[in-house]
Amino acid sequence: MREVAGKWRPLGPALLLPPLLLGVAKSARWAGHRYTPDWQSLDSRPLPAWFDEAKFGVFVHWGVFSVPAWGSEWFWWHWQGEGLPQYRRFMSENYPPGFSYADFGPQFTARFFEPDKWADLFQAAGAKYVVFTTKHHEGFTNWPSPVSWNWNSKDVGPHRDLVGELGAAVRNRNLRYGLYHSLLEWFHPLYQLDKKNGFKTQNFVNVKTMPELYHLVNTYKPDLIWSDGEWESPDAYWNSTGFLSWLYNDSPVKAKVVVNDRWGKNSSCHHGGYYNCQDKFKPQHLLGHKWEMCTSIDKTSWGYRRDMSMADITSESEIIWELVQTVSLGGNYLLNIGPTKDGLIPPIFQERLLSIGRWLNVNGEAIYASKPWRVQFEKNSSVWYTSQELAVYAIFLRWPENGILNLVSPITTTTTKITMLGIQGDLKWVERQEEGLLISLPLLLPSALPVGSAWTVKLRGVE
Amino acid sequence: MREVAGKWRPLGPALLLPPLLLGVAKSARWAGHRYTPDWQSLDSRPLPAWFDEAKFGVFVHWGVFSVPAWGSEWFWWHWQGEGLPQYRRFMSENYPPGFSYADFGPQFTARFFEPDKWADLFQAAGAKYVVFTTKHHEGFTNWPSPVSWNWNSKDVGPHRDLVGELGAAVRNRNLRYGLYHSLLEWFHPLYQLDKKNGFKTQNFVNVKTMPELYHLVNTYKPDLIWSDGEWESPDAYWNSTGFLSWLYNDSPVKAKVVVNDRWGKNSSCHHGGYYNCQDKFKPQHLLGHKWEMCTSIDKTSWGYRRDMSMADITSESEIIWELVQTVSLGGNYLLNIGPTKDGLIPPIFQERLLSIGRWLNVNGEAIYASKPWRVQFEKNSSVWYTSQELAVYAIFLRWPENGILNLVSPITTTTTKITMLGIQGDLKWVERQEEGLLISLPLLLPSALPVGSAWTVKLRGVE
Amino acid sequence: MREVAGKWRPLGPALLLPPLLLGVAKSARWAGHRYTPDWQSLDSRPLPAWFDEAKFGVFVHWGVFSVPAWGSEWFWWHWQGEGLPQYRRFMSENYPPGFSYADFGPQFTARFFEPDKWADLFQAAGAKYVVFTTKHHEGFTNWPSPVSWNWNSKDVGPHRDLVGELGAAVRNRNLRYGLYHSLLEWFHPLYQLDKKNGFKTQNFVNVKTMPELYHLVNTYKPDLIWSDGEWESPDAYWNSTGFLSWLYNDSPVKAKVVVNDRWGKNSSCHHGGYYNCQDKFKPQHLLGHKWEMCTSIDKTSWGYRRDMSMADITSESEIIWELVQTVSLGGNYLLNIGPTKDGLIPPIFQERLLSIGRWLNVNGEAIYASKPWRVQFEKNSSVWYTSQELAVYAIFLRWPENGILNLVSPITTTTTKITMLGIQGDLKWVERQEEGLLISLPLLLPSALPVGSAWTVKLRGVE
Amino acid sequence: MREVAGKWRPLGPALLLPPLLLGVAKSARWAGHRYTPDWQSLDSRPLPAWFDEAKFGVFVHWGVFSVPAWGSEWFWWHWQGEGLPQYRRFMSENYPPGFSYADFGPQFTARFFEPDKWADLFQAAGAKYVVFTTKHHEGFTNWPSPVSWNWNSKDVGPHRDLVGELGAAVRNRNLRYGLYHSLLEWFHPLYQLDKKNGFKTQNFVNVKTMPELYHLVNTYKPDLIWSDGEWESPDAYWNSTGFLSWLYNDSPVKAKVVVNDRWGKNSSCHHGGYYNCQDKFKPQHLLGHKWEMCTSIDKTSWGYRRDMSMADITSESEIIWELVQTVSLGGNYLLNIGPTKDGLIPPIFQERLLSIGRWLNVNGEAIYASKPWRVQFEKNSSVWYTSQELAVYAIFLRWPENGILNLVSPITTTTTKITMLGIQGDLKWVERQEEGLLISLPLLLPSALPVGSAWTVKLRGVE
Repeated sequence: MREVAGKWRPLGPALLLPPLLLGVAKSARWAGHRYTPDWQSLDSRPLPAWFDEAKFGVFVHWGVFSVPAWGSEWFWWHWQGEGLPQYRRFMSENYPPGFSYADFGPQFTARFFEPDKWADLFQAAGAKYVVFTTKHHEGFTNWPSPVSWNWNSKDVGPHRDLVGELGAAVRNRNLRYGLYHSLLEWFHPLYQLDKKNGFKTQNFVNVKTMPELYHLVNTYKPDLIWSDGEWESPDAYWNSTGFLSWLYNDSPVKAKVVVNDRWGKNSSCHHGGYYNCQDKFKPQHLLGHKWEMCTSIDKTSWGYRRDMSMADITSESEIIWELVQTVSLGGNYLLNIGPTKDGLIPPIFQERLLSIGRWLNVNGEAIYASKPWRVQFEKNSSVWYTSQELAVYAIFLRWPENGILNLVSPITTTTTKITMLGIQGDLKWVERQEEGLLISLPLLLPSALPVGSAWTVKLRGVE
Repeated sequence: MREVAGKWRPLGPALLLPPLLLGVAKSARWAGHRYTPDWQSLDSRPLPAWFDEAKFGVFVHWGVFSVPAWGSEWFWWHWQGEGLPQYRRFMSENYPPGFSYADFGPQFTARFFEPDKWADLFQAAGAKYVVFTTKHHEGFTNWPSPVSWNWNSKDVGPHRDLVGELGAAVRNRNLRYGLYHSLLEWFHPLYQLDKKNGFKTQNFVNVKTMPELYHLVNTYKPDLIWSDGEWESPDAYWNSTGFLSWLYNDSPVKAKVVVNDRWGKNSSCHHGGYYNCQDKFKPQHLLGHKWEMCTSIDKTSWGYRRDMSMADITSESEIIWELVQTVSLGGNYLLNIGPTKDGLIPPIFQERLLSIGRWLNVNGEAIYASKPWRVQFEKNSSVWYTSQELAVYAIFLRWPENGILNLVSPITTTTTKITMLGIQGDLKWVERQEEGLLISLPLLLPSALPVGSAWTVKLRGVE
Repeated sequence: MREVAGKWRPLGPALLLPPLLLGVAKSARWAGHRYTPDWQSLDSRPLPAWFDEAKFGVFVHWGVFSVPAWGSEWFWWHWQGEGLPQYRRFMSENYPPGFSYADFGPQFTARFFEPDKWADLFQAAGAKYVVFTTKHHEGFTNWPSPVSWNWNSKDVGPHRDLVGELGAAVRNRNLRYGLYHSLLEWFHPLYQLDKKNGFKTQNFVNVKTMPELYHLVNTYKPDLIWSDGEWESPDAYWNSTGFLSWLYNDSPVKAKVVVNDRWGKNSSCHHGGYYNCQDKFKPQHLLGHKWEMCTSIDKTSWGYRRDMSMADITSESEIIWELVQTVSLGGNYLLNIGPTKDGLIPPIFQERLLSIGRWLNVNGEAIYASKPWRVQFEKNSSVWYTSQELAVYAIFLRWPENGILNLVSPITTTTTKITMLGIQGDLKWVERQEEGLLISLPLLLPSALPVGSAWTVKLRGVE
Repeated sequence: MREVAGKWRPLGPALLLPPLLLGVAKSARWAGHRYTPDWQSLDSRPLPAWFDEAKFGVFVHWGVFSVPAWGSEWFWWHWQGEGLPQYRRFMSENYPPGFSYADFGPQFTARFFEPDKWADLFQAAGAKYVVFTTKHHEGFTNWPSPVSWNWNSKDVGPHRDLVGELGAAVRNRNLRYGLYHSLLEWFHPLYQLDKKNGFKTQNFVNVKTMPELYHLVNTYKPDLIWSDGEWESPDAYWNSTGFLSWLYNDSPVKAKVVVNDRWGKNSSCHHGGYYNCQDKFKPQHLLGHKWEMCTSIDKTSWGYRRDMSMADITSESEIIWELVQTVSLGGNYLLNIGPTKDGLIPPIFQERLLSIGRWLNVNGEAIYASKPWRVQFEKNSSVWYTSQELAVYAIFLRWPENGILNLVSPITTTTTKITMLGIQGDLKWVERQEEGLLISLPLLLPSALPVGSAWTVKLRGVE
């Protein structure tokens, strides 16, 4: 037993549960580089290329919070952590006295959950990766975690391995599969104990967090780990660097895995893999580091809310604009939906995802595997640039009233050729000294293009 | 007791429940015309004008069927009337053995039902009337019917008077309020008995149907009665003509009330008020009688289904096209939504309704209170006509590729003036002998108009 | 239809539901006596003999009140009729807001109801008849009443015909089967309406009470109708005399049926069949009319209460004493139990019933088919008498300290012979002028007899 | 962290959760004896005297198994461990597909649990100690265990600390409080893992068993630990000797605590504190070691079963006879009841307990703090002996037919005096050579004594 343990968690203080969790990765005999469990070493790892090329992913928040489906996925915290009056009222008006959050568990049925339908939808949306909540701050695990007995999706509610089932469906369609994982659990008694101890004890990390992270990696071999819930304690408490060094050196996904930056208080925007910085992060300029903007179609919640109304739903245009701007500035765009407790994706989310798919069908060339151009956007305009090796793409978010698109940044050459994605034939253009490039847009019929929110002009032979 | 009864139901065989139901209408002393309980007399009544002027209404299907919310609002019948395998499987997979349809009742909570929010939405959609299911074929009454004890929304489930609450909200916004009412109830033991007796007995009609219809009229004073569930038995069984003569002669709504045509086997499309004929009825030409097309945003159900997907949702364009064609042919358009058991309207329905509202904001002039024109549509084209006293409206469903709208039916005069709804200024036009009227459409920016599905050209001074 | 109706309800105003309910009894061609619908005639009917011979019956209270199973079977009334604070608190502490009484219905599962087991127990208790609540004041019918749709045991909860199933089991054991039926229903809207009208209207009686009574009789052919819920209105309101004259003249049970005395305000203790007078009625002397004492093992409730404790349970001795005293005074003893919502009889009730059975095994000769003797009890003593043709029985409730039973009323003769039930051999006795008869009791071992609560001395040849 | 751990669990391999659980006991500075973690040392500990003096205790089985309340408290194992057909049928007939054992949790409401009422009853029964299931093999903890998150009575179901509440009530009445604790948990994934590993790993023990045992002791300071669930693995796996040495040396209950013998495969009947050997253990002779017979009023289950019938209920006499025989042979008698999921004790259990109390009221002098006599019972008779310092008690279970109690073992002296408990005055006796002592019993009236199952003759001055 002890030997086995040694293999998979070679660093840091003795873990509790080693041997139970794994088909252990063979000890890396690889002659080459090994990462050490410190940020300097870990931050030096190059990001696997697939992530930057993917550009667009779908984020899925699903859990016991999908049962009350009211307020947001922070329901439990708002209700019993903060004790907000409207949440307490919601409970007293709708449930018998003494009803607890755990009592919601059996109602999380996932009855109609068909992972293939979800994955079809995500593929039709043009997503290249999917990030799924394996466990949110509520601590309920969407897979049969051996250290979350009777508070996981196999024992309670769905009685299924949600993480496994969705993973299989997603990969059958050649999408990458990412696992969201919350380090903290608001109400876990061991976490609360550690917190009370000023995070000088690690009961919770040893018994829950680490065993589960290892188990997730070894079982589902994720392409991406989307860490969260890190903010109350330093990475030393979480054993984050130990875990990451194992992940990079010895785990079965060491070659392909991508992680984000939420690994301890102060790590966000500074350490780890790519950066998320804040939720719904929108930088105004190119960053020196790969990043990802995550946001949600329902503006006020990541988890499903029964009470959402159209005023809370991001419009098709807003979504496409955010995608364009994010990609122009070097980011990935991770767009969230919240399925119902039954396992269904509300039609309004389907509609938004499908319309992105329609737009990407035409304009994907300017997005997938693109690179930021030397200029990211035209000032006082709605034009955003991306580039591929042989072309620059100007994506404009508003159609100019006079039908002439005016670009000041591209420098034309003798080989310059301009077209519009989705439209046959070259566009006419002139270059004028004071105004720059003037491109005659086609006389576009309303509804000639599937989504009337942004259009792409492709410029070849410009500098 | 007998005197009281005499006051309110002076015609036909003695009813059972007379005195219980009402503040009785004063015996009509009106010197004028009285309708007799036969179709010849009843069919002669002129349709109150408000209905033809309204053009667009919202239909709402809500009931216990919103609890299983699967398949359609015919759930019960498919399950236990026809015994369809997929319904039986659905029950056996999701509910304990012996679970009955009535057992769904307590789960019809209507917890989040805010009638003012619904009515706001219907108003924003541009609807002029709302038709609400007071009782579907399942027999559950959405109001406290005194003859449907413990199978109504006051005793079970919502514990509210849904019909009354929605009515108040709808009328506060000056919308007309219509009541859908199913004559038959699939599983009512008295209905089944009458059926077994070849409808030679009227136990069910005497005890249930008639008392409830009178109660509905006297209590909620509806502008419209949308009768249904008539098809298995003749109007004589239903006492329809007796009821209608009371409704037209003596009821508190005799001046304003409108009814449809479902009052007995063979009455549909032949007798009553306006005609519905079949569900989703689409005539190809002008009818000699006022009619209404009813249809549903969810193509496969009138009641809410949890399992609907975007493939089942009528698109914005289809809806607007149907509205236009219906009005051109003299019909009203009644568009259905199904709220959830919680009392919420799914966002995708909100979105569709709001986009009709946006379209009607611009184009309503061509719809509300319009009359069919002498020509209803241009052949081999997508142009449909309506008219007001001083103008003809040509609504075109596809934007011509060359920007020139070609109309062959209107005859121009010296005063002819052509504009486009929602756009400033007159349009240029010419008339050519062989081609007819050619109208230069504006160079329309994508998204200059709120909904890109249909546009209206207004012609003044044409014949 | 009208002819048929005429047959079975020949008196009074036209009823609603005639033809639905029955295989109609053949019009009585019997040449003999017919009862007229007035008390003078009805009260003259001789009581069928079986009832007086039976002496001991079991009463069963079962209904939706068995679901909350708290307080008593008057739960609904205490909660929402009277609004008693402890009931309102019980609801608010244990159920979500808005939970209604009807919402209890689906939880009345009767899952473990095995009527044969019940009937075996009743037989083992020595009961000769069983009275079952077909419908209590809550209005829920324990059989598929066609006029109580979705508020009966076939549509909701058990999904079984409880009245029919229990009846079959009871009769298989040659026990008589009685049906308890409440005339009133606290919350039926039509009853409430009639009440508001000062019982000058009969909506409720016509639509609910009478159709159900006829249906019960025609379907289950009861030996006994135990009417209740009569107290708020006169028999004229209930159509009681009309119903009884049909029952006695033309019903399928006219020869054998027995009824009690609760047929209208003031009828109790005055009209009908045998008398119940009040619940738990205990006269102090012989009555001139056959009567029945009904009482309940749980002293504070007839329906099952989860919260009963031993302090509320009638002891074995009390029960046997009541039985003895009742029979001595010419009454029948009807002892009640309340099964659980699952259909199980709590063991404490089983125990009490079985111990009566053990006592009757020994002492039944003094009870069944006995007649009151010329003296009913000895003053200042615990001795009670019954008689058969050839014997007098002295049942003593306390064992005399000196082992000598002293009786003053019997007059011995030359043929006098005295024995003790359950004990072999004659007892020695002397008669002394001042003291009367002195009987030497056997030296009884503790537990020589099954139940140590009462013993019977049989006297032959006394006057 | 390590230092802290050291304080409270000084022996054995590093435990996981040390510091979380406790106000740590001060390291015992007691100069005297310390037990070492081996059976030789541990078995040498004298049993605290209170236990042998108590003689009679009440055992309470309560847990999630009280929700299905069918079959027995082994419901889960029979259903999903063994897959017995009748259990699988029970589930499929009564619950929706996919319903899991954990789904029962929220229905374990304990709504009517009033610990003071329970404790009053136990006191009235004459019990001197109470043993309560803190956690049965199902793993659900009846107290807020920090290592059983969302599978304990605080998070799920009762939302109360059942162990704590009952303890307070029991101690208020000066009864001793014992905690039943199952070492194994059938379905805990870590236990299953260890089992699969041939119990060579101790994941489960480290994470669950030991932390919970320490937590129980430190929190509730029990007088008795009733260990169970030990049988599949050796004590070395369970760390039993380590725990017991801490319990005896350093725990807050080291002076008073008593334990039983279930601490590992083969430990039962050989090691630990007093012996239980098997459930319902009935030796035929004096043992050399203090023992306890545990048994249940419901013969076929320890947990509450809704389906129990009188045939399964131990009679009053059987219970009293077992108590007498057990005490005569030096044992304690621990009699079990199973409360309902609501927290109520079924009346039949109340009745049995109260009748023991009535018997002990009279005969307790022969039971409490008694010692076995030199002869335990008379052969071919129903007489059992106990003794106090100055008296011998002959308890006879059947009343002799001739009223003469014949004892062969006591040797009379000149000071011999014989009385009967509960009866005034001395009894007459003679001694005959061949027959022994012949005692004239009083002419006992039936029901002169509260319970007719056993009577005690007290002999002073015999040898």
